[in-house]
Amino acid sequence: MKKIVVAPDSYKGTMSSIEVCDIIKSAIKTVDNTIEVVTVPIADGGEGTVDAFLSAVGGQKVYVKVKDPLMRDVQAYYGVLKDGETAIIEMAQASGLCYVEQDKRPLEATSYGTGQLIKDALDKGCSKIVLGLGGSATTDGGVGAAAALGVKFLTSQNTQIPLNGGGLAQLDNIDASEVDKRLSNVKIMLACDVDNPLYGEIGSARVFAPQKGAASEDVEVLDTNLKHYASVLKERLGLDVSEIKGGGAAGGLGISLLAIAQAEIMSGIQVVLETVHFQDIIKDADFIITGEGKIDGQTKHGKVPVGIARAAKLLGIPVVAVGGCFGDDYMGIFEEGIHCVFSTINDSLSFEEVKKTCRKDLYHLVVNLISFYKI
Amino acid sequence: MKKIVVAPDSYKGTMSSIEVCDIIKSAIKTVDNTIEVVTVPIADGGEGTVDAFLSAVGGQKVYVKVKDPLMRDVQAYYGVLKDGETAIIEMAQASGLCYVEQDKRPLEATSYGTGQLIKDALDKGCSKIVLGLGGSATTDGGVGAAAALGVKFLTSQNTQIPLNGGGLAQLDNIDASEVDKRLSNVKIMLACDVDNPLYGEIGSARVFAPQKGAASEDVEVLDTNLKHYASVLKERLGLDVSEIKGGGAAGGLGISLLAIAQAEIMSGIQVVLETVHFQDIIKDADFIITGEGKIDGQTKHGKVPVGIARAAKLLGIPVVAVGGCFGDDYMGIFEEGIHCVFSTINDSLSFEEVKKTCRKDLYHLVVNLISFYKI
Repeated sequence: MKKIVVAPDSYKGTMSSIEVCDIIKSAIKTVDNTIEVVTVPIADGGEGTVDAFLSAVGGQKVYVKVKDPLMRDVQAYYGVLKDGETAIIEMAQASGLCYVEQDKRPLEATSYGTGQLIKDALDKGCSKIVLGLGGSATTDGGVGAAAALGVKFLTSQNTQIPLNGGGLAQLDNIDASEVDKRLSNVKIMLACDVDNPLYGEIGSARVFAPQKGAASEDVEVLDTNLKHYASVLKERLGLDVSEIKGGGAAGGLGISLLAIAQAEIMSGIQVVLETVHFQDIIKDADFIITGEGKIDGQTKHGKVPVGIARAAKLLGIPVVAVGGCFGDDYMGIFEEGIHCVFSTINDSLSFEEVKKTCRKDLYHLVVNLISFYKI
Repeated sequence: MKKIVVAPDSYKGTMSSIEVCDIIKSAIKTVDNTIEVVTVPIADGGEGTVDAFLSAVGGQKVYVKVKDPLMRDVQAYYGVLKDGETAIIEMAQASGLCYVEQDKRPLEATSYGTGQLIKDALDKGCSKIVLGLGGSATTDGGVGAAAALGVKFLTSQNTQIPLNGGGLAQLDNIDASEVDKRLSNVKIMLACDVDNPLYGEIGSARVFAPQKGAASEDVEVLDTNLKHYASVLKERLGLDVSEIKGGGAAGGLGISLLAIAQAEIMSGIQVVLETVHFQDIIKDADFIITGEGKIDGQTKHGKVPVGIARAAKLLGIPVVAVGGCFGDDYMGIFEEGIHCVFSTINDSLSFEEVKKTCRKDLYHLVVNLISFYKI
């Protein structure tokens, strides 16, 4: 055995994907220090996305002063990979719920600071931007971010609207003539793990605004305003954004970027696989270890282990999934290219107890698996 | 991969060792039908010992009418292996607690019927007898069984004592002149998994008689009587049985057999390994799968997986342990020759819930392990 690639998701509620990688690598090395172990912690666009990419590829963090959701100055960071061309940005670093936990104002929150992070990456000469859409405080359709990049959102009196979900009600026209020209040469990959559209029954406001502090009347206002934004985009720019999957992520942030840049909404796993050149990494691996906290019927529907398995299947590389636990119908994952699946649990314990032992359990499971494989 | 030997203990409280073997075999065959699977369910001398041996080696059951613990006629069976020479007897088939559940009489219960089973095996020409000591209703020191084989237990008036734990108080002399002569050519392996001596603080009466219905005053009588039996054995036959480990198993049954036959007290696993010629079975195996319900610090102390591992280590055959769950300090088993260990549990569940899913879980675990091994 020469090489194992370790590419897990986080174990939700217990361990980050970086931590899972470190534990699995350490377990493999304990059994056989000669095995090459390449770790690719998978980021989903939420918190930890920058760290995961930097851990997988290498690079550095860039710190910038930007505006938080309520336009206060904060220090945020993003990552630049070692190729010097790829920026990894978490929108939550500038526009996250973390800044307003004590004072949520869903109608006022803006994504302006996220636009500033993008602008800073352009200033650094980045030609590829990964933008993680998790953890936002905003429901502004991304007009804040677009404004930071030069777009003017105007009322019927030709004044700028408030750059937030409440302000969208006054939107009458969009002037993109002064948009940052560098955007036309930059590829933006919007990493998100939800399919929700911009507005409507399962749109951004109805599904996500309550956790951002929106009371039911706020939700209605925000949903109406996002729908109005879509109608202005259609009327003024000829864009129909009503059915874009993931358009509702991060308060609709992706919609503005799709309108003004060469952007694409992708799953977190797709973005990672493409950005780290996963096919190159795995092509000489004996097998891949992936995993997530709970492996169940949902795993089959595009979650990390199956995303890894599909990529590996193309090269005929076997995939082993290591889960915290199994849920209903997990057997479906075998059809997707996962060869076998193991649980870290080894006693009758409550989830609270399992959380305490999961690191040790994961380590021991992998030690035992590698020992078994080497028989 | 050509051959796997499956040699597990029962999973206490959930599955017999035969059932565990069947599930593991079926899982292996599901992944690769060309693998030869040899199953050796391990018997501990208790209920299921005959079935386990017949399942591992082949042979047939012999049905005999014998006396139960209260001297009533019952139909019991023992096994004769296909070599025609080895009898497998469970003492509980004749003298078990099962016959007196509704009417326990610890002072009256006799092992007479067990002696009848042994006699029947001699009549069939068996030269090797495995006698499982689990599940007895008796605390008679085995005088019942020995009497059925021709030994006379006499009072000071030269009359026969009652052949039970209460009757031992009247024992003054032992006349073995008419013992069944065939016993001198027969090897009796007494299979037992306890170390308790015949009498004393951790002797047969104090530790086991309460579960056979003895009130505290009965326990004292029985312990005194067993000690008296030991003193008569010493005085009349020159035998010191006071410190024999396992002498307290099955109400002291082994003591009488040690006195009148070529008997040896052995652990269940030792008896199985010797009887089935385990070294021959495993010598061309790729690896062995063993296991038990809970793998913990105790496992190291002579329980089945470690017994299997020690036997396998002599031939350099790797051993994989598959447990229901892990307990404290299970890591010690690695020093004994177990290569790796896996738990069937795969979710946060109570033991009651685990019991319901354990068959399916064991099956899936082994399917996944074999799939992994074949990568």
